[in-house]
Formats: sequence, C-alpha cells, structure tokens
Amino acid sequence: MALTEPLQDLLERFRAGKIPALARAVTTVENERPGFQDFLHAVLRDGPHAARIGFTGPPGAGKSSLVSYLAAAYREGDERVGVVAVDPTSPYSGGALLGDRIRMNDLATDPGIFIRSMATRGSLGGLAVTTKEAIDLMDAFGFERVLVETVGVGQTELEITAAADTVIVVLVPESGDAIQAMKAGLMEIADVFVVNKADRPGAERLLKEIRQAIHLRAGSALKDVPAHHGVDLARVGARRARARPAAEETGWTIPVLKTVGQTGEGVPELIDAVERHRAWLTGSGELERRRRARARTRVRDVVDRELRRLAWGSATSGAALERGLDEIQEGEATPYSVARGIVEDLVTARRGS
Amino acid sequence: MALTEPLQDLLERFRAGKIPALARAVTTVENERPGFQDFLHAVLRDGPHAARIGFTGPPGAGKSSLVSYLAAAYREGDERVGVVAVDPTSPYSGGALLGDRIRMNDLATDPGIFIRSMATRGSLGGLAVTTKEAIDLMDAFGFERVLVETVGVGQTELEITAAADTVIVVLVPESGDAIQAMKAGLMEIADVFVVNKADRPGAERLLKEIRQAIHLRAGSALKDVPAHHGVDLARVGARRARARPAAEETGWTIPVLKTVGQTGEGVPELIDAVERHRAWLTGSGELERRRRARARTRVRDVVDRELRRLAWGSATSGAALERGLDEIQEGEATPYSVARGIVEDLVTARRGS
Repeated sequence: MALTEPLQDLLERFRAGKIPALARAVTTVENERPGFQDFLHAVLRDGPHAARIGFTGPPGAGKSSLVSYLAAAYREGDERVGVVAVDPTSPYSGGALLGDRIRMNDLATDPGIFIRSMATRGSLGGLAVTTKEAIDLMDAFGFERVLVETVGVGQTELEITAAADTVIVVLVPESGDAIQAMKAGLMEIADVFVVNKADRPGAERLLKEIRQAIHLRAGSALKDVPAHHGVDLARVGARRARARPAAEETGWTIPVLKTVGQTGEGVPELIDAVERHRAWLTGSGELERRRRARARTRVRDVVDRELRRLAWGSATSGAALERGLDEIQEGEATPYSVARGIVEDLVTARRGS
Repeated sequence: MALTEPLQDLLERFRAGKIPALARAVTTVENERPGFQDFLHAVLRDGPHAARIGFTGPPGAGKSSLVSYLAAAYREGDERVGVVAVDPTSPYSGGALLGDRIRMNDLATDPGIFIRSMATRGSLGGLAVTTKEAIDLMDAFGFERVLVETVGVGQTELEITAAADTVIVVLVPESGDAIQAMKAGLMEIADVFVVNKADRPGAERLLKEIRQAIHLRAGSALKDVPAHHGVDLARVGARRARARPAAEETGWTIPVLKTVGQTGEGVPELIDAVERHRAWLTGSGELERRRRARARTRVRDVVDRELRRLAWGSATSGAALERGLDEIQEGEATPYSVARGIVEDLVTARRGS
C-alpha cells in the first residue's frame, strides 16, 4: 500500500503536527481522492489513542454548547481537542444545513483545537464512513480528545457507537418523553444521559422517566413490566442486553445528569462522569472490546465501499446501467437480470485484468 | 435465471392468485432464501401496474388510521389492496416494535386485502431493499393499490420516494412546526400534505406554515427570504428543485389537506387528491420518470447486495475478518490492509471458479 508522492509529502507534514496537513488529510478522505485508503492505512498503523466522546440527541438539545464547554475544559488542562460535527443532510443534496456551529466560534482561534463539520451524504441516515475516518485522522494526528457531535434523527445516533468510546445522549424537556427516546434507540447506546436546559418545566419528569427506564432495563423486574405506550419495556431491555453486555453486569451504572447550557451548571459533573467512564472502559477491558467491534464495522464498511467503487467507478458500468434501464422500461429485463449482468461483467473484467 | 422446483411451484400458485403463495413469496424475499432473486425476476417481467401510495410522517401522526380509511374506500370500489407497514427497528435487534398495527384488525378478515408488516433491519435508517421487494410482489400479485406506511424518523421517509408513486406526508399539530418538517426533508418528498388531528390546537398555524413553505419553495421570491430558525428557506427550495423537477413546473400543486382520523373528516378530499395526483402522474409522463428512477435505485441496490453476499456469504471471509481483527489489535494491520486482502481474495476466488 505505497503512497503517491503528494500523499507521502502530506504524510510527513501530518506526522510533523501541521494543522493544514490535517485539514488537507480530512478533505482527501472526505472526497475519496486517489490513494486515500493508503493514507489511512499509513496513519492508522499505531492504532487508536484518543478518548473519543460522542454527543447525540435531537436537534436543538444544546449539544454544541456542551461540546464547547468540554472542549474548553480540556484545553484548560492543556489537552488538544478535535471536534467533528455531523450535519444531517438530505440525500438529495450535497450540502448541509448549518445549525448552531456558530457558537463554537470563540474556540475557533485556539490552535489547540480543530473543528470540522462533516456531511452525512452517501450514507442514508447513518454516519458516513468518511466521517468515521475523519475521527480516526484526528486521533492519529495526536489529539488527546476527539469530540463527535451528531444530530440524533432516526437511526443516525445509533451509529455513533461505531465512532465514539463514550456516548453522551443529550435530551431536553421539550424533546418528548423518555419512552420516545427508547423507541429511537437512544436508551440502547447511552453511556451517560444528560438532561440539558434542566431549568425548564418538565426536566424533573424527564429525569425520573429516564432513571426508571434505566432501572427497568437493568432487568430486575423485566418480566412483570406491562407494555406502555405500545412499547414493551421488557423487550427493549432484552434488546439492549443483546447489543452490548449490560453495563450493570460489568460495573458501569449509567449516570443521568442535569445541565443548563446557558450557565454551565452541571458541566463539571458531566466532565467527571466522562472521566469515570473512561476509567471504567480501560479498567474493565470494555475499551478493547469496543475498539475491536469498531474495527470489525470498519473492515466491512471498507470492503463494501471498495466493491461499490469497483462496480460503479467505471463509465462501462454506468452505460450498462442506462442500457439496462431502457430494457426494463421496454419490458425486456428486470432489475434482477440487469444487476446480474453488471455483477458478472465486473467479475469478468477483473478476471481479465 | 431458472427457478428451483419449489420456487417454480410457488410461482404457479402466486400467478393463480393464491394469498398463501403471496405470503410465502414475501417471506422468501424477506429472508433472502436461495433463488429469491430469480423469483423476483420471474414475477416482475410484466413491470409495475399498481398505484403505490406511500404515507410517511412522525410517530403518532395517525398514518395507520388514514391507511385504513383509504384501504376501506378502495375495497368498497372493489379494488384489491396490499398494505406494507414498515416498523423502525434498532439495528441491534432483528425484531420490530409493534405500534398501532392493531387498528387495522377490522380489515384483517377481508380476503381482498393483504397486510404485511416489515422490519427495517439491514438497512440503517432506510427502507430495506427487501421491503421494496415486498411492495413489488404485491404489485405483481395483482393488487390495484399498494399502500405503504413508513414511520418518518430521520431519513427513512426520504426513501419512500423509491417505493411509492404518490407520497402523502402526514403531520399533526404536536409534531412540531413546519420548519422542522423541512429540515427532515419531508418538504422535499410530499406530493400531498395532510395535517391530521386537525381539530387540535395549532392545526391552523401548521397548515399556514406548510402552505407558506410550499409557496416559498415554488421559487417566486427565493432570493429575498431571510434565514429562519437556522434554516435557509431559499436553499431548501433550491435543494428540492434539484431533487425532482418542481411539481409547479409540470402542473402539480401540492395540496395541503386537513383530516381528523377519529371521525374520518377530510378523508374524501384526501382520496380525491390521490386520484388527481395519479391522473397527473400518468398524464404528464412523471410516472414513467419515477418508475425509471426507482428501477435505477433497485439495480444499484441489488448489485451492491449481490457483491456483499459474495463478500460475506462464505465461512472463508468470516474467518479472514476475525484473523484480520486479531492482526489489527496486535498493531500488525489496519482495517484498510485487511479489507484489501478480503477484496483481493474475493476476486481471486471468483477467478478460480
């Protein structure tokens, strides 16, 4: 996996800690420029080091504010911080809606912090592989902390487990009751729960609901729980247990914290919870388990991407597709016969090469 | 693409209009049983005929009620109806949360209607390819109408355009303002808007907001529109225009209707709007355009799935993956070198076969 000369240059500047080289590396990966996989291979040989902290939750929950607080706190401790913010994007658009990125501007002049906004394009509702690769790049660059912010709409938030070691789920009283959160799968992925804007009405009720749900999930009385709001709590608990070893079994109790983004109230407790989770991750062996699971997902993603690139990266396959669509329209083919032809052509072409 | 004997049997019973054969065909496809692609090829040779009507919107918007009303109305007109309901599913679980499927029970004894609930497993946040294939099966079986209900969480709702000819977006006063809907991309895909539970407070405001947003999107004054709630309305309009030819250009004005699911108020107007949209689809050539776009997506999906099946369908690749993960953990490899090895093995194996 030899690097081209420009990428070899880039690698040297990247390893020398030049921020512009990091920015260029992220762009290289995001745009899948020739050789980007070789570059990733080169910088990832040392494996992951950074503490990766993910924030997810509904739009407007104040995730950016919390990210800013944590970033500022880590900077005070002289740790370097990378931030990856993921904008949900319509698959119809290459662009991304801009949200509350602005709030981070006060951190933008600090050379010890690097903020990058990524689109979700190319991966319907999930984190794009290139986004996870940008996180890897920040890790490999030497940031002690990489903070990842994803807007939790739909299933996106679930994929944050494939990018972060510690997942913080941020809810607000307005974001609906905890039952809805469970439905969306948030309950399955949280290492820490935060009720932000906790000075607003409904905060106490939300806190109570989340704590109850966590308690139920812990499994003490699962069999006796009635279905509620159409959601079978026992079943949700069982699903979580299959997904990851229940934290309770291994000694981690999910904290449910209150914060007020505007005043910073509760932020020290959040920082403390993140530290305790980190200590638990490393002490229990869970960090290794999560990193291996992440590597597994990555290998699969990269293999699938390479196969798609082989399949669709040529003018030949594009032409075969259009020809096939004509045949389908004329009733002479179906998507299945056209697809078979494209797959066979691909294999034959490779065979001949 | 020859069928195995059991599938040939199934095909004959399917073509004879036996409902159990349809049920079995859906299961065969859903579980990707051997030869399912050949079966789909066989039944899809005639191309699509059914009117495919998709309902999407947030959980609790009352989509199932509207689906039930329309199904009942079509049955009165002696049309046969297939219903595909998609449950959002955590990727961590093979199961699906049960929602308000129950409401359809009163239709369940009618032999002219076939209801199938599908999970979204295997396709993060999107409609599983097998779900779209189930819709195709209902079409090929001879149902005049196929109604598709998807819970619009995140990006799922956007994919309904890859499954339905007419997309009905159902919102309720509680589901947040129209701006949020635009963010989620609903504005981009609606052929008909319905404000359900329109007897509740906030309905008029929501109606007004949707109408304003549609008006803005039509593009008359896009340049002068200020950013609002962090969303650049002009940009949203521009995105929609790129996605599909703006309906306004081709003669379709998106109706914004009010319904009350509990009483059935507004349902006749909805049925009428669906008919008018159908007439516009066929008259304008848009139906052919949408079907071709759907076929393009399907060919790509099927090719990608076949390649994944080739890559991961063998014990060899599973073993190579686990071995690779060990090497990554020991710092001897990266996901990129492991992935490259798996892709090369795959091509070599095919070459030798």
